[in-house]
Amino acid sequence: MERIRGSAAIRTPLVPFQSSAFLIKAESLQVVGSFKLRGALNIMLGLSEEELRCGVVTSSSGNHGRAVAYVAHMLRTKAVIVMPATARQSKVKATRALGAEVVFVDSIEHAQPKACELEAQRGLIRIPPFDDARIIAATGTIALEILEEVPKIDTITVPIGGGGLIAGIATAIKALQPSTKVIGVEPENSAAAHKSFIAGRLVTLDPGEGQASIAEGLVIDRIGILPWQHIQAFVDDVLTVSEVEIASAMSEVSSTARLVVEPSGAVPIAAWLYRKGTYSSSGVHVAIASGGNIDLAMSSVAG
Amino acid sequence: MERIRGSAAIRTPLVPFQSSAFLIKAESLQVVGSFKLRGALNIMLGLSEEELRCGVVTSSSGNHGRAVAYVAHMLRTKAVIVMPATARQSKVKATRALGAEVVFVDSIEHAQPKACELEAQRGLIRIPPFDDARIIAATGTIALEILEEVPKIDTITVPIGGGGLIAGIATAIKALQPSTKVIGVEPENSAAAHKSFIAGRLVTLDPGEGQASIAEGLVIDRIGILPWQHIQAFVDDVLTVSEVEIASAMSEVSSTARLVVEPSGAVPIAAWLYRKGTYSSSGVHVAIASGGNIDLAMSSVAG
Repeated sequence: MERIRGSAAIRTPLVPFQSSAFLIKAESLQVVGSFKLRGALNIMLGLSEEELRCGVVTSSSGNHGRAVAYVAHMLRTKAVIVMPATARQSKVKATRALGAEVVFVDSIEHAQPKACELEAQRGLIRIPPFDDARIIAATGTIALEILEEVPKIDTITVPIGGGGLIAGIATAIKALQPSTKVIGVEPENSAAAHKSFIAGRLVTLDPGEGQASIAEGLVIDRIGILPWQHIQAFVDDVLTVSEVEIASAMSEVSSTARLVVEPSGAVPIAAWLYRKGTYSSSGVHVAIASGGNIDLAMSSVAG
Repeated sequence: MERIRGSAAIRTPLVPFQSSAFLIKAESLQVVGSFKLRGALNIMLGLSEEELRCGVVTSSSGNHGRAVAYVAHMLRTKAVIVMPATARQSKVKATRALGAEVVFVDSIEHAQPKACELEAQRGLIRIPPFDDARIIAATGTIALEILEEVPKIDTITVPIGGGGLIAGIATAIKALQPSTKVIGVEPENSAAAHKSFIAGRLVTLDPGEGQASIAEGLVIDRIGILPWQHIQAFVDDVLTVSEVEIASAMSEVSSTARLVVEPSGAVPIAAWLYRKGTYSSSGVHVAIASGGNIDLAMSSVAG
């Protein structure tokens, strides 16, 4: 906590959405535009000088890579980011602008193996994107910040990609305020966590089972093993939302809360808007808008 | 200050723009989406119970009216808002949604006379939009909030419409940190303050001299008398920016700072982007993004 607080990360604001009972934790306003900075800082500030000199490598569809590139630039070390060739141009450009080397693979499934290969070949230190205790500890700081400002929360709704974000938040919340419900949300096009939650075991999607989503940061064939253990222990429900619901939520956040959120960050707000039964009319509800990095062309999707 | 702090207004965040040397004070994230809430609260919380029972009236192209309607709703009194027929639909709708009565006039010049007429005819209390010491005192709280977070500021750049916002900020800043430069910015299509600043006297634009602007909240034929006295005493320069520069700044704020700002709120950021000579490369620069209420159709203007 202190490692992250005293560093480059900012305490992001809670912004009301439609009423003061619904609060968006705007990690979209975090430095580099997503919560991923917290995990990258927590891992990289913990590396020895010798490790830092080796340089770092990671795989990412965008935000994690950008965060690692940012921290590497700050710590004056080399960063290599493995990205799928389908990654959004703005994310590639932002990562390169921070001085990182970008290595492309044909799809996101090949990104992590490639990062491991580069780790071995080039002696780089690998910074895992989500399946790591240091990432989970770092995302827990988001929950601490929220509870410092709002003492009593009814529900907290969190997007799920690899699961590192919700794992940290759920663990921190259940330790401090066990009555708060933690709800995960995924695009129905890529529902690896939802399927695992229903099955009660870690499910890997078959090739072709998951589909593309505008919430490209959440598309994954299997959530992390460590996050899964935390989700099983601490998460109350995992919902899914459609592509249209995600786009509509982006637009609504833009006009009502005056925040630019990327589709992945709009996913929990889509649950507020379209799974109303989950949220009691009394009490305070918080959603994590995980990131705000959109291509300009995409803003037309949001209307 | 305490009246505003303890009430419905929130302390808005400072959000970095491109680097941590340029900070946007995001009044776009204020309740009702603009700084206008501060003035409406300061005036209306100071009314007696008897005055409040009369109901209130004001004239506004949008944000001030919405703020007055919000506070009236909070204090359970009647609000009548005089708006030009050209006001944006979203602003009319939001004002009505708060229970206010909207009275239309054909153009903004006729709005204030109509409000005075309704004040006399219907015994309503008039809430002036900018030419009032209580408005100027209220907007000064924005400067206090900034200085509490950033002890040393090089420049502070503020949009000018009627002048109430910059008057309060300049007065507070020059009292607390006289070395900070205060820079006002207007659309070149409606440059009543710029012309007054050059002439050294309060200039009224001739009919037809001012043109329409996408920053419709700043279009006015003459700034307020009281704001003008503060501007003359405390403002270091008044710049103008073009329509294209304003639209480009909106787009840049959306992609770089992940904030939705309305054209009026993007005006000072246009000065950062297109009047670079004004801003030293060392030091910290703050701009006031005064509001974030855009029509969805307008987001396409911003790219």
